[in-house]
Amino acid sequence: MTAHYPFKSWVVPRQSAAVERLLKKAADQRDAVISFAGGLPADDLFPQEALADSLDRVMTKHGREALQYQWSEGYAPLREQLAQILQARGITVTADRLLITHGAQQALDLIARLFLRTGDPLGIESPAYSSAIQVFGLQRPRVVPLPRDADGLDMDAVRAAIRGPRPNLLYLTPGGHNPTGSALSSKQGAELLDLCAAHDAYVIEDDAYGQIQLDEPRRPLRATPGAEDRVIHVGTFSKVLSPGLRIGWIVAPPPVIEQLTQLKAMVDLQTNTLGQMALSEYLARHDLGEHITRCLTHYRERRDVMLRALAEHMPTGPRWTSPSAGFSIWMSLQHPADEPLLARALDAGVAFEPGAVFFPGSDAPAGHMRLTFSNTLPARIREGVRRLGAVLR
Amino acid sequence: MTAHYPFKSWVVPRQSAAVERLLKKAADQRDAVISFAGGLPADDLFPQEALADSLDRVMTKHGREALQYQWSEGYAPLREQLAQILQARGITVTADRLLITHGAQQALDLIARLFLRTGDPLGIESPAYSSAIQVFGLQRPRVVPLPRDADGLDMDAVRAAIRGPRPNLLYLTPGGHNPTGSALSSKQGAELLDLCAAHDAYVIEDDAYGQIQLDEPRRPLRATPGAEDRVIHVGTFSKVLSPGLRIGWIVAPPPVIEQLTQLKAMVDLQTNTLGQMALSEYLARHDLGEHITRCLTHYRERRDVMLRALAEHMPTGPRWTSPSAGFSIWMSLQHPADEPLLARALDAGVAFEPGAVFFPGSDAPAGHMRLTFSNTLPARIREGVRRLGAVLR
Repeated sequence: MTAHYPFKSWVVPRQSAAVERLLKKAADQRDAVISFAGGLPADDLFPQEALADSLDRVMTKHGREALQYQWSEGYAPLREQLAQILQARGITVTADRLLITHGAQQALDLIARLFLRTGDPLGIESPAYSSAIQVFGLQRPRVVPLPRDADGLDMDAVRAAIRGPRPNLLYLTPGGHNPTGSALSSKQGAELLDLCAAHDAYVIEDDAYGQIQLDEPRRPLRATPGAEDRVIHVGTFSKVLSPGLRIGWIVAPPPVIEQLTQLKAMVDLQTNTLGQMALSEYLARHDLGEHITRCLTHYRERRDVMLRALAEHMPTGPRWTSPSAGFSIWMSLQHPADEPLLARALDAGVAFEPGAVFFPGSDAPAGHMRLTFSNTLPARIREGVRRLGAVLR
Repeated sequence: MTAHYPFKSWVVPRQSAAVERLLKKAADQRDAVISFAGGLPADDLFPQEALADSLDRVMTKHGREALQYQWSEGYAPLREQLAQILQARGITVTADRLLITHGAQQALDLIARLFLRTGDPLGIESPAYSSAIQVFGLQRPRVVPLPRDADGLDMDAVRAAIRGPRPNLLYLTPGGHNPTGSALSSKQGAELLDLCAAHDAYVIEDDAYGQIQLDEPRRPLRATPGAEDRVIHVGTFSKVLSPGLRIGWIVAPPPVIEQLTQLKAMVDLQTNTLGQMALSEYLARHDLGEHITRCLTHYRERRDVMLRALAEHMPTGPRWTSPSAGFSIWMSLQHPADEPLLARALDAGVAFEPGAVFFPGSDAPAGHMRLTFSNTLPARIREGVRRLGAVLR
């Protein structure tokens, strides 16, 4: 009998196969194509020497431990250090309310698997981080889009959703919205928490970009009084230090963190020991805050260079955000930013991320693109925007 | 309103909470308690220097790349090296049919999520690796236990199951069964593949212990002619090199590997870059086969020491396996090997793994324990078995 592979969940890629191919092609031609696609941190800013030194120390002092299995909740000293880092950001937390995960992405997956089954309502900001839409989608929830723009959330939509046949779970990026780069005002945050308490709802706060604040520091939603029981906070070292280590975390109330830890044990036993111990060693000997401040100077410069270049090179028609957080600018066109346009852009030596994937729900608008500035040097940002402007003209 | 946390899957620990506490206590008292619980590779045999050197080289030569994001399918040079290693074991495979995962555990999770939904039949050997039972259980399949003992699989049960309202998916550890340490005969393997082809079924081959062959080398089921379309092969570097790196893999036909790669991208984006690159550097400069051979000498000695100590110290009644593969001996008692017995054992300074968790289905027999010899030095194995014998007497 011929094999027919009885898949029970058919998984479709984030972008269409054709777009994925073009984006991989762009990534493979790093010299010829200036890519604003993806969401990579600046690898020229990685503290390579400090991390190499930390790895060396770990292997010399604790090699056996670093190569062996560990408990599922994560490396205890790292959890203590992380609790301190989060406390400094206003989050009341102890190490036993923290789970270390393989990045924020796995954190979202674990939360989705614990809380959502087919047909369960999930409020999700729209547009939203595309891979969050995807990972929640695996649980087949009933998605309720909550419009979000440069001014934050559409609170009327939130109120209607949370009172109706309600989502009791909302996925949001309060402090640094991907793709627009906006943040919720503290007034919006406070109202959100009031609504959650009144209607027994919970916020999954994806704070991946929470520390990439380009204008002024900002506290996470979880730091708001009353958030402790209502906000499940997800974070990562991927944007501020290194994504290759795959180390993120979840802060949640004890019954939630216990369940998530059991689930983590089942799905991959534990987060890689070596990365956790190297990170712990790094945090013990270096000032992460200083490193982030240094990175922010560069990110701010890259954002400003891109904003100026857009003002100079874009034709009339496109509008774009001025992000206060994160790695990207969100641009809205009066025509589709789709595969044919991406193909033409590649021919002109520039790539962007087609924006339809950032919309939850079925009829995603096509006229948007995300432009990431974080991992491109200023001169290349200018040249890339010039090329993009020529394509759009 | 008080928070009530609307969990949609309630996750229960592998062992009962009481047993988990005792096992953690045992692990925390490494000097006082000789633990045969868990399934850790020998950390005294890790190639620490070689891996430290590999990490150092990677950070020096490719630090930026090692700390950055990568494609979801895994680090290309590592996939090429792995394809060669597998080819040497008789598996026809190219790098594009390989996905790198966060250990074999994540490999099982991805496969379960792709193929199983609530109520779908799944054949699973009984007893079986307890964390496989758990991770498949998250998909809520209808479990069909397939009895397995020191002689291999009960082929009558397999025939009946595969012909009936059939499982079209079978989870098996052909070359190294955890917990008994047995292997399928090549005759059983060939019949299994014939049955799969005739009844459109698939085997998930968990080969985690496939290279821990204590008596003679053995080829994986996937190396059998005709297995290419019918066997999804799962492996890991955890038992032969280091579990702390969390690097495993899946070999599957192209449509399956494509879907699994998409799923991997959704659930944690990618396997940690640093670990993959360090492993690749290690494989390029060292002979993994030689390292495994050296480890096997020690594992064989530890098994033999445990077998001799059991013969010397056990009262009449208990029976145990003589494993040809893996890290453990499976012992069957005439009374429960449960929490009270474990508590008494701990008081006597020895720990074992209560065996009920290795049985899929609801009425697990209680009279078994797993005794792991891999990570204990011979003198302590002898002393631990002496203590256990005194407890059982």
